[in-house]
Amino acid sequence: MDSILIHGNDDLLGALQEAAQPTFVCTIASSDTGAIEGISIAGASADMRKYTPPADMEALFYGSARCIPGVAATPDGIPSPVIITMAALAATKLPVFVVDAGCEVPPQTPYFKLGGPPARSLVTGNAVDDVEGLYERGWHLGANLAKLTDYLILGESVPAGTTTALAVMLALGLDAEGKVSSTMIGGAHALKQAVVEQGFAAAGISKGSLAGDPLAAVRAVGDPMQAAVAGIASAASSVIPVMLAGGTQMAAVAAVMDRLGEADMSNVCVGTTRWILRDSDADMAFLAGQANCPRVYAADLDFSKARFQGMHIYEAGLVKEGVGAGGAALAALAYGGLSVDELLARIEAVYEATVLPMLRA
Amino acid sequence: MDSILIHGNDDLLGALQEAAQPTFVCTIASSDTGAIEGISIAGASADMRKYTPPADMEALFYGSARCIPGVAATPDGIPSPVIITMAALAATKLPVFVVDAGCEVPPQTPYFKLGGPPARSLVTGNAVDDVEGLYERGWHLGANLAKLTDYLILGESVPAGTTTALAVMLALGLDAEGKVSSTMIGGAHALKQAVVEQGFAAAGISKGSLAGDPLAAVRAVGDPMQAAVAGIASAASSVIPVMLAGGTQMAAVAAVMDRLGEADMSNVCVGTTRWILRDSDADMAFLAGQANCPRVYAADLDFSKARFQGMHIYEAGLVKEGVGAGGAALAALAYGGLSVDELLARIEAVYEATVLPMLRA
Repeated sequence: MDSILIHGNDDLLGALQEAAQPTFVCTIASSDTGAIEGISIAGASADMRKYTPPADMEALFYGSARCIPGVAATPDGIPSPVIITMAALAATKLPVFVVDAGCEVPPQTPYFKLGGPPARSLVTGNAVDDVEGLYERGWHLGANLAKLTDYLILGESVPAGTTTALAVMLALGLDAEGKVSSTMIGGAHALKQAVVEQGFAAAGISKGSLAGDPLAAVRAVGDPMQAAVAGIASAASSVIPVMLAGGTQMAAVAAVMDRLGEADMSNVCVGTTRWILRDSDADMAFLAGQANCPRVYAADLDFSKARFQGMHIYEAGLVKEGVGAGGAALAALAYGGLSVDELLARIEAVYEATVLPMLRA
Repeated sequence: MDSILIHGNDDLLGALQEAAQPTFVCTIASSDTGAIEGISIAGASADMRKYTPPADMEALFYGSARCIPGVAATPDGIPSPVIITMAALAATKLPVFVVDAGCEVPPQTPYFKLGGPPARSLVTGNAVDDVEGLYERGWHLGANLAKLTDYLILGESVPAGTTTALAVMLALGLDAEGKVSSTMIGGAHALKQAVVEQGFAAAGISKGSLAGDPLAAVRAVGDPMQAAVAGIASAASSVIPVMLAGGTQMAAVAAVMDRLGEADMSNVCVGTTRWILRDSDADMAFLAGQANCPRVYAADLDFSKARFQGMHIYEAGLVKEGVGAGGAALAALAYGGLSVDELLARIEAVYEATVLPMLRA
């Protein structure tokens, strides 16, 4: 399909196209890493960032958030990529499940509880509690879901998740410096690298020193989503294809899975957006390859001609991905059979219904 | 099948037999009603009762509980009916999901979080918080599960659940006095009735006074499981058959569903054990009929010739049902194609592996 950019073998895209009933699961978590000034713009302010993951989930279920008005947005009012996910899931009617791997504010939706409290900042070098438990409970959840669905799409909403991704990939020894994406233009690489180095010093680790113990890398400098999704995906991958739906966060999850050695990586792909795959300030495909997850598919969304100016900003390199937007869009295109123009029209309709009223308020 | 007792139309039993992939969901909750002396023997003591629901779920996932040793048991060491559910689910490999509608002690398994804290005692007349939220989130969960499975079996583990069932059925105007089952021989009807009357006085309600507002009945004198399962089952029943897997607790859930009017009751049945359907101290079928849920199927389990004396006690009228034991057993017989003797042998094996070591400890 010319609406989808394909990197690597397209077999798992074909499997999505022919799936009988794919399922969308979004894992959310928060961490004090997200409270570092300048690290993220997922949320109207650092204080509001804790509401972003639950607000995203509420929007998926109810059409708008409940813990905040409308939908989550950047400080400048650019809406969360949840508007893409909402449109794509409404078009495909995929079953939707939320996983709370450790949220400061729980969503007002049904959700799977897999974890405990939110993570500490990665600068502590001791970020995540009970990573083994998160992974184990994720494993059981994935094994059960794989009995019911023939294709699992796993999204995430974790503010500052690219910084914890960078930290974990470096701890595992990947060549990841300057290669993770960001909600921000330019990528804030220097800040992220400095934060990671602070975490490494606190944990007493160095690049590659935890290559043999991926859950220890998550425990030291990661976030709870990574352990939970690694568990869900590892269990499911031996039964059905699994799409890790996200940006460079998902390269970190794939690396954890690959190094743990309990997944069938030939059944795992990354599903994302063009804004991630073509991000000139990052290198998604290179990271995914190092994570032994060479299949990367990207929905070729183009907001430059959207009806609403507020959407054009995506083309400038802001937001890019999140809440499984790319994977959900791929489902709408490949499984749902929508054209990219039909999907764009549906995203515009969601924008009109949920974002315009916020801007006018 | 001669291993199944059938009350009413057998169409939903046929649907179970022919289902492609049934799913088992167990909803757990606790309430201070369970702390009333003499009201329940689900748990080794009133203090230990809060561990019974999580212990049951842990045993389903891991083969034995984690929050206590072995499996939950009565003060005399009679094991929880979870041993039946464990054997039946292992035989059928059904996907298993746990729903926490409000537990004092959360299970160490993956679980759906639908509710908040455990309920207050029904004697307060204000037992359950946020019943509308429980019902709504249950509804969304049921609607999503119904996209993935073609038969939903909904069990429960709620200590003192027959007392809250009695209270809700009376508030709805059902002829339920002296007709709910019990884990105890005789049924403790006088104590239950006295507790219910205390709750009615505190709530300022009388028999039938909440017939038009079933969620208000749950709020006043019910438990969180009732609202959650009513939501799950109501949403799913418009798409797929739903089996309410339990004893007279499930008659109360069916009554709530029927009076709310959002369920297709022709797609809802009760699945239970012979010990419930033939309980001479209760009247399951009469209650289910009043709840507009006339289909009641019961697994014809007979423990009188079990290899272990500890199982014979079930034939004396203790325990009887719980953790969806009857519904899971029906799945093993109708969907799994086991004979009742094969199922008994598997239950004996679970007893040998999990209960005998407890008795020897």
